[in-house]
Amino acid sequence: MPKILRINTRTKEYNFEDVGPYVNLGGRALTSRVINKEVPADCHPLSAENKLIFATGILGGSTAANSGRLSVGTKSPLTGGIKESNSGGLFAHKMPKMDLLAIILEDKPADEAPFSTLFISDNKVEFRDASDIVGMDNYPAHDKLLAEYGDKMIAGLIGPAGETVRKTATIQFTDPYKRPARSAGRGGTGAVMGSKKIKAIILDSAVNNKVEPADAETFKTARKTWVDILTGHPVTGQGLPGFGTAILVNLVNEAGAMPGKNFRLGQIDHAADISGEKIAENIEARSGKVKEGCHTGCVIQCSQQYNDANGEYLTSGFEYETIWAFGANAMIKDIDQIARLDRICDEKGMDTIEIGNAIAIAMDGGIIPWGDGEAAIELVSKVGSGDPMGMILGNGVDFAGGAFGVDRLPTVKGQSMPAYDPRAVKGVGVTYATTAMGADHTAGYAVAQNILKVGGDVDGLKKEGNIELSKNLQIATAAIDSMGFCLFVAFAVLDAENGVQAMADLVAAYTGKPFSTDDLINLGINCMKDEQLFNERAGFTKYDDKLPRFFETDKLPPHNVVWDIDEDELQGAKV
Amino acid sequence: MPKILRINTRTKEYNFEDVGPYVNLGGRALTSRVINKEVPADCHPLSAENKLIFATGILGGSTAANSGRLSVGTKSPLTGGIKESNSGGLFAHKMPKMDLLAIILEDKPADEAPFSTLFISDNKVEFRDASDIVGMDNYPAHDKLLAEYGDKMIAGLIGPAGETVRKTATIQFTDPYKRPARSAGRGGTGAVMGSKKIKAIILDSAVNNKVEPADAETFKTARKTWVDILTGHPVTGQGLPGFGTAILVNLVNEAGAMPGKNFRLGQIDHAADISGEKIAENIEARSGKVKEGCHTGCVIQCSQQYNDANGEYLTSGFEYETIWAFGANAMIKDIDQIARLDRICDEKGMDTIEIGNAIAIAMDGGIIPWGDGEAAIELVSKVGSGDPMGMILGNGVDFAGGAFGVDRLPTVKGQSMPAYDPRAVKGVGVTYATTAMGADHTAGYAVAQNILKVGGDVDGLKKEGNIELSKNLQIATAAIDSMGFCLFVAFAVLDAENGVQAMADLVAAYTGKPFSTDDLINLGINCMKDEQLFNERAGFTKYDDKLPRFFETDKLPPHNVVWDIDEDELQGAKV
Repeated sequence: MPKILRINTRTKEYNFEDVGPYVNLGGRALTSRVINKEVPADCHPLSAENKLIFATGILGGSTAANSGRLSVGTKSPLTGGIKESNSGGLFAHKMPKMDLLAIILEDKPADEAPFSTLFISDNKVEFRDASDIVGMDNYPAHDKLLAEYGDKMIAGLIGPAGETVRKTATIQFTDPYKRPARSAGRGGTGAVMGSKKIKAIILDSAVNNKVEPADAETFKTARKTWVDILTGHPVTGQGLPGFGTAILVNLVNEAGAMPGKNFRLGQIDHAADISGEKIAENIEARSGKVKEGCHTGCVIQCSQQYNDANGEYLTSGFEYETIWAFGANAMIKDIDQIARLDRICDEKGMDTIEIGNAIAIAMDGGIIPWGDGEAAIELVSKVGSGDPMGMILGNGVDFAGGAFGVDRLPTVKGQSMPAYDPRAVKGVGVTYATTAMGADHTAGYAVAQNILKVGGDVDGLKKEGNIELSKNLQIATAAIDSMGFCLFVAFAVLDAENGVQAMADLVAAYTGKPFSTDDLINLGINCMKDEQLFNERAGFTKYDDKLPRFFETDKLPPHNVVWDIDEDELQGAKV
Repeated sequence: MPKILRINTRTKEYNFEDVGPYVNLGGRALTSRVINKEVPADCHPLSAENKLIFATGILGGSTAANSGRLSVGTKSPLTGGIKESNSGGLFAHKMPKMDLLAIILEDKPADEAPFSTLFISDNKVEFRDASDIVGMDNYPAHDKLLAEYGDKMIAGLIGPAGETVRKTATIQFTDPYKRPARSAGRGGTGAVMGSKKIKAIILDSAVNNKVEPADAETFKTARKTWVDILTGHPVTGQGLPGFGTAILVNLVNEAGAMPGKNFRLGQIDHAADISGEKIAENIEARSGKVKEGCHTGCVIQCSQQYNDANGEYLTSGFEYETIWAFGANAMIKDIDQIARLDRICDEKGMDTIEIGNAIAIAMDGGIIPWGDGEAAIELVSKVGSGDPMGMILGNGVDFAGGAFGVDRLPTVKGQSMPAYDPRAVKGVGVTYATTAMGADHTAGYAVAQNILKVGGDVDGLKKEGNIELSKNLQIATAAIDSMGFCLFVAFAVLDAENGVQAMADLVAAYTGKPFSTDDLINLGINCMKDEQLFNERAGFTKYDDKLPRFFETDKLPPHNVVWDIDEDELQGAKV
């Protein structure tokens, strides 16, 4: 039975505990329960009272396709509310092989304490001197760790942004290609790790216990059904593997739902220059890789390796939302500049959505010209240094707005919106407004029904049906995040009659405990309840479940739509 | 009958309106009613939907002693909640002489629009080119305005901090000595004026209508009684005129309630160096002035003129809270450095409490050394320029904490605490926590009963009695602010049996309408209700009526007290 490893970062004591009250939970349901139960809702996110939780999903460590995602939970320095930040990489799949369900970092050392590397081995934790990698960017630091701990080492680490407790700081995780290219991206989880003076967490490659399903035969059958569902669907079987998530650039732009110039436009003229098709063309010409998985057992393979014009590795995990933030919202037209910005964000350890949007705010405030990629690169490179401009940008959109005197701030609960304009994709707008996470597309991705017409057809330009749609997606997503699945399985699940049943069957066979589709739905509902309760005690009300007023007053071209769902209606999307 | 002057800062249209629904209101009760009724609670404070209201008190323009204070109301850029910022100066007393009860600035021009000076004359408003004073500090800009508009001109203006919409920006007002030394200090009112592109408001000296009480004879008698009450009390008749508010340095320090080193200490060793006695000594030696009034009709005269070592004017309105913020909380021991910091704050137009505390945060974050006055002067001087460090500091404590990675932030609702530690002056702690204004001593000054033992004796170290005390003081203060009185009249009123009756008599005689002591109390209660309602719609809950957690966990020496009043108990202080 996997344990919960609690580590006190001040006293350096640790304990491998039975799961106790957290039995039957995993992933996001687990991190959110721990936070709701153990973290004072009114504590400062960077104070000793906050905790940082890494949890594998209920199916973590299994061979079920696409079940190796990691949940990182904390009270967010960005939003002041609860946060689950979901990441690919090898960390989550490895944890059960070390008999770990979750790792909880508690307390914090004095401000002047040095950073440590946590080396987690078989029933043992060591705090090791991190001075040789402190201040280093993520790729070189990760290379140094690989050299020291061996090629099979799996790490989670923070870059200079995390060390300097920026509100956009990520935790980066080792991917299957020995790169720290996967991020727990949103909400500043890296700042919490930085406040606890942990530069990196290393999972000992020498510990590699065998993980078996409780009911191996049934699991095998369920697993086969599951793979068929994923590989048989046009989005997860063809679209995403072919062009990655950047396939959305043209699709969302054509739908008139692509926010441009700090959410002033619904379409941009230069979509072709930054599209998935363009990226695929460059990858081909420069000997990159079109398909990569972000974690063990991924059959979707939506990631890729993007090389520079000289054929040298530049970045990977080059997502639509990143491309949109820099390319459309900040109007940078050169895909190679955007790729460099993506790499810098991975190096410093920063959320590309929040940083791309903060760059748009800098442009809106006249700090640098619209679309100036080189100026953006210069600004973004300052984060993590002692430069006050880096302190500002590294804290995201609301903070940059306060510094630069910009009042057009596309944020909810302090987190900025991703790549879908809520006026034209109203289902996602409902999700932005009501999820406990702040503006987060992944919490209820109604783009599927609003634009892609997967899993249903609900008009994104109209209010009707979108509240119910978002609510159901939010519940399903919370369950998906708790089982450890990649969110993209939802595309296939929504269109397959036996999709939800297949997931439930996998859980039942893996754990050896009955698990119905009702149990699956309740897993999601209870997870959301934990999150809503925590936020309520942190001071959030229905007035925080709103979009900024300019969405109600400014019409979005080309459909000339506004946001027209008020706070009382929006409460219908909550559990 | 005085009018309400509404000015649209975008269209440059204006209208002198009847008071309509705002009849019988004045000062804070008026500004808070207008905001609650007319400003969308969820608008961005710097957006076109916010308004900026200047209101004279119900007794404004009268000869009642100490009734010439001004209320400036808005949705605060600092707190995100409602704000009344109260100022001395000549502006409020002048308004009724121009038949003005209130001036409301609405809407805002485009970001690239130039700044204007508003010239308000007899039933006329002109938008004049302000380019000759844009970017200038307040004293030189005010001198230029005096040269242009004549010696009797009365102005309200913003400095570079307001022009650059810093969250600490004040509006400075002409005092009786032709200096822009009086501030609507707290909550960033100057940023709202800056967002509306108004550099200065000039009240035409040529308009000077006679203002008469409705019942002149009764008013004369009431006025005499009132003056006797004020001049007869030891605090308002002797203490404040003798040493100014800085007399509190030694008193609060001896009580163990003076927050030192970012609220780590309750007493400082160098109190004598920055005390009211020391200031009085310097003033005498340097030919300054010990007594000055901040507005027409002041009989308390708690202000002074503080000169530098060469006998040159340095600053005035040199308050205890300013001296404390820089001198105790940031540990700067040189009173002349503190006076220079006060002057720089008046020049740039910044709240001395918020800036002093932000300097303490910079010291706590290792940006400059503790107590380093010259380094503080250098940092503070950057505000209002394009320097990113100035952008940070100029936005106050929470913002500086976010930039410098400091989680020990003594703020409530985003506004930092003044010079009284809530653990040792619990009545003020209740006020900090529960007033709609954010941490604000003036909203319910229980220092009177907790330390000075004026108007009662309630132990500041214990919870008992302090919730009720703060509530009653908050109601009384809201009424005092609405009548236009200086808060310091409360010292005398609380100890005089006929104090409240005397205020009510003045209002009745001045307005010619019945006004009982019950009416006075209801004036305060209704004002607080407006404020609480607005904040509720702006998303505030009982979880925002709290002190930061470190006050509950860290004991304050020398009494080793903690904050021990929870959010449910605190609701007892609300109306």
